Amino acid sequence: MTDYRAFYQGRRVAITGGLGFIGSNLARQLVDLGASVLLIDALIPDYGGNLYNVDGIDDRVRVNVADIRHESTMNHLVQNQEVIFNLAGQVSHVDSMEDPYTDLEINCRSQLTLLEACRRNNPGVKVVFAGTRQVYGRPDSLPVTERHLVRPTDVNGINKVAGEYYHLVYNNVFGVRACSLRLTNVYGPRQLLKHNRQGFIGWFVRLALEDREIQVYGDGHQLRDFVYVDDAADAFLRAGASDAANGEVFNVGGMEPIAHRDLVRLMVESAGSGRYRFVDWPADRKAIDIGDFYADSSRIGEVLGWRPTTTLADGLRQTFAYYRGCLDQYVPAADERVAAL
Amino acid sequence: MTDYRAFYQGRRVAITGGLGFIGSNLARQLVDLGASVLLIDALIPDYGGNLYNVDGIDDRVRVNVADIRHESTMNHLVQNQEVIFNLAGQVSHVDSMEDPYTDLEINCRSQLTLLEACRRNNPGVKVVFAGTRQVYGRPDSLPVTERHLVRPTDVNGINKVAGEYYHLVYNNVFGVRACSLRLTNVYGPRQLLKHNRQGFIGWFVRLALEDREIQVYGDGHQLRDFVYVDDAADAFLRAGASDAANGEVFNVGGMEPIAHRDLVRLMVESAGSGRYRFVDWPADRKAIDIGDFYADSSRIGEVLGWRPTTTLADGLRQTFAYYRGCLDQYVPAADERVAAL
Repeated sequence: MTDYRAFYQGRRVAITGGLGFIGSNLARQLVDLGASVLLIDALIPDYGGNLYNVDGIDDRVRVNVADIRHESTMNHLVQNQEVIFNLAGQVSHVDSMEDPYTDLEINCRSQLTLLEACRRNNPGVKVVFAGTRQVYGRPDSLPVTERHLVRPTDVNGINKVAGEYYHLVYNNVFGVRACSLRLTNVYGPRQLLKHNRQGFIGWFVRLALEDREIQVYGDGHQLRDFVYVDDAADAFLRAGASDAANGEVFNVGGMEPIAHRDLVRLMVESAGSGRYRFVDWPADRKAIDIGDFYADSSRIGEVLGWRPTTTLADGLRQTFAYYRGCLDQYVPAADERVAAL
Repeated sequence: MTDYRAFYQGRRVAITGGLGFIGSNLARQLVDLGASVLLIDALIPDYGGNLYNVDGIDDRVRVNVADIRHESTMNHLVQNQEVIFNLAGQVSHVDSMEDPYTDLEINCRSQLTLLEACRRNNPGVKVVFAGTRQVYGRPDSLPVTERHLVRPTDVNGINKVAGEYYHLVYNNVFGVRACSLRLTNVYGPRQLLKHNRQGFIGWFVRLALEDREIQVYGDGHQLRDFVYVDDAADAFLRAGASDAANGEVFNVGGMEPIAHRDLVRLMVESAGSGRYRFVDWPADRKAIDIGDFYADSSRIGEVLGWRPTTTLADGLRQTFAYYRGCLDQYVPAADERVAAL
């Protein structure tokens, strides 16, 4: 696996959700590796797509604004690609419980659209899917390995399960090589900060940067693991380059778990701004909460040689440094910000 | 659980897929128990719905022809029901691989439609979902318990997983009481015999009845377990009457596994007609085949007191006796039959 980075030299690579958080960071690595990069993104408001995410590499990528739910669009766009990193999705747990149909369309049906497009128009392509630790639900045991039961606790998690399984079935039955990376909590530059419906980490980053109060649910004892976005992107690069990954699912998690209360302390310290307070759980969050979670990511280490290399302290430092220079590109204009306070 | 049958006296009960194989047999038991029964069925050609299935009880059930994918229809029909047996579905593995979108709409989206209708209009209802052993895919170990990994091998299996998980999440998060029965291979009167795309058992019954040749793939060593439809219906009745089932999944399988070659021998013997021959696996079937499978159904025994009570020999005898009197209601007209030979 030492050559996985060289593999991308001159490769035709597409990224769905390519203007989003992980997609755009992955794109940055790919253009540096000499790949020919197509970014497909629907730029749906309140999702993660942001044109500023490709600032500085915009002359080295091709951006095609399109919705992966649209069949003829995808039938065209997948053609001639050698690797597709499939990261487009609706990522809000809470939204999925209010509007389960949209979540179904984006996380379930659109994955079929992409895979059918590949099956019919480009069966030789390799697809790497962005899965999620959500598929495990509330863990029976820790750390969670890939052998843990799949038992999602919300509609978003269910649709992500289905989306992942489609990839495995298309790999096994139709020979469209595919695999899935079950990401835990990814953080870093270029994450959506506009609202708090896509998980807490980006929202906490924003609150710290704006010197506001971070509210921690309960007493903050809950454990999570966090993976820096460049490490996550490295996992995608390895999976895309290796046929050993075909038909497989891999956990992609952080170095070691940390309690929420320790995380926010570290964040406030790293940002040099913000503060935190413990508050009661809101009912709608508590209902879909999963308790402690951290992943065992040793399997992808064994098969693909991946391991996380960025400490949380280093990752947070880089994250805050990034946003300090361009926060206005990630948060609403001043008047909206006041309304959000 | 001795009172579970008395529970249905005067109850308002709906069955989606109520004109189908299991639904109509369940309806027969329910009307005998004094329930007020609404059958919802779209009568989609080539699916399992058949008006003849309610012959003899048609004056004791209410039939509403409707598609459970349709939101306002379901918003109306779920109202005032006390128990909904949710059996509507697309059940062909092979069709799901040719037309994954239709399978998605029926097995995935329509389950959301039903559950959203209940959440918004009848949150006190109890829903029992017809799940499937397909969710397990190719087993790691036998017999398969509910702790086995969920790993479906085809699109139909994936969508059935999602449909099942929706029920559990609506139970856990929204309090719409729901559970799922993972049925293995159900057989008996009123099963679709028109074509062979809904699993082999009904098709084998037809071939034996028509004194035709049954083709067994490979050498017929594969093991399966079979559950007689009245036993399956009894599992639904128990699950619908008990809050101990809420949020749970239960395997519902047969008494003991039997090899395909022994099954067909028994069938030909029981029917007194037909013959069998071993043939090579067709590629499209082999690609989604799962090897040996039989379920451990002890958990539903412990929680709900269910166990299978009909031997395969008895079940087959009753099945052949039923169809001998009305085969014309289940197979196409003579000219089509010739074409199918």
